[in-house]
Amino acid sequence: MAAELPVVEEILSANDRIAAQNRKLLDQHGILAVNIMASPGAGKTRVILRTIEALRGRLRIAVIEGDVAGRVDADKVAETGAPVVQINTGGGCHLDAPQVQRALRQLPLDGTDLLLIENVGNLICPTGFALGEHLKVMIASVPEGHDKPLKYPGMFTVVDALVLNKTDLLPYLDFNTEAFRTAVRALNAAAPLFEVSCRTGEGIEAWVEWLSRRHAGQQGNCSPLPSI
Amino acid sequence: MAAELPVVEEILSANDRIAAQNRKLLDQHGILAVNIMASPGAGKTRVILRTIEALRGRLRIAVIEGDVAGRVDADKVAETGAPVVQINTGGGCHLDAPQVQRALRQLPLDGTDLLLIENVGNLICPTGFALGEHLKVMIASVPEGHDKPLKYPGMFTVVDALVLNKTDLLPYLDFNTEAFRTAVRALNAAAPLFEVSCRTGEGIEAWVEWLSRRHAGQQGNCSPLPSI
Repeated sequence: MAAELPVVEEILSANDRIAAQNRKLLDQHGILAVNIMASPGAGKTRVILRTIEALRGRLRIAVIEGDVAGRVDADKVAETGAPVVQINTGGGCHLDAPQVQRALRQLPLDGTDLLLIENVGNLICPTGFALGEHLKVMIASVPEGHDKPLKYPGMFTVVDALVLNKTDLLPYLDFNTEAFRTAVRALNAAAPLFEVSCRTGEGIEAWVEWLSRRHAGQQGNCSPLPSI
Repeated sequence: MAAELPVVEEILSANDRIAAQNRKLLDQHGILAVNIMASPGAGKTRVILRTIEALRGRLRIAVIEGDVAGRVDADKVAETGAPVVQINTGGGCHLDAPQVQRALRQLPLDGTDLLLIENVGNLICPTGFALGEHLKVMIASVPEGHDKPLKYPGMFTVVDALVLNKTDLLPYLDFNTEAFRTAVRALNAAAPLFEVSCRTGEGIEAWVEWLSRRHAGQQGNCSPLPSI
């Protein structure tokens, strides 16, 4: 197993080169790209659908859907009219930059302000692979329990924002919101935490306002953002 | 990246060798070992706690807890009095056979009938790594949604049994139980599906009865089970 480390380093370095190319292409088109990561079933697609709905007429959104198999999520997004590309990883446990590079070729970049990239449902592996995104966002959800930051600290540490979804289920579970907030803050003091229910729509406006401000901030720069 | 495949094969083959050693050790002690896999927050630990409670006085249970970080789950199990070893993988996205081998050295094998191994919360990577277990079991949960078999077919295909947890939340979600059952059956016609609520205890008895029968069946063999 002596060769393992160099091979892993080579893969990561090749990924980073292509991620930098993706980032440059996105910057040239004034697109803010968001890498959305979560456990399976936390509600990534529902957050994307709510975001498209809430920003209709304000920002033009395109979507890349990452899944091990199937195109259930891409079909749901396509119903909104937003351009969407489905990536199937086969057995792969995360998206990588070459996959996103190929997907970008199929999207109308000139007509896009915001690119939402739904990563494969996994709290561990996606953090190691840059895609060219400007922001990393994690969707957590109430049924998963408030102890998740203690068990998966890597994801909670690297993200630029957190969305806590399914707050409508709080009355039926023993989720301790204060314990969750405290555990998140211990790992990541800077990232805003949006508490939302995609079922009721509660909290979605604050989340999309933040996204809009990040997009406006990007456009206000005289030069492209520094590359990753 | 030409060297990637041989290195991966070498790692898997080394893992399989140690998994076979683990299996032999478990067989020598008449222990039935179960590899429990699930998304983060599906309720693996709650299922283990309910199983210990329901089988008290019938089977002697030991537990291996796998997590990226922390020992929250091991502490909960220790409160029941069951012997437990916590494995922290660092950044690793699954347990492997060498980690389980080291954990087995810390457990009272002569006083154990059933070993429950809680894998890292991840629907993808754990399926590729044998631990020496006799049974693979997946815990799915209602809030994750009924479409998970379509997105993570590998896990649903390889398991010997499925537990669908958190059925107490069915009234508050648009989970389609029939669609879930149909999707599971399309991938895995043989595995029993236990619908349970760890919150209320509903359905737990059928699940532990199945486990007990599997343990009794193992003991009834004249020779150890064939190795993996």
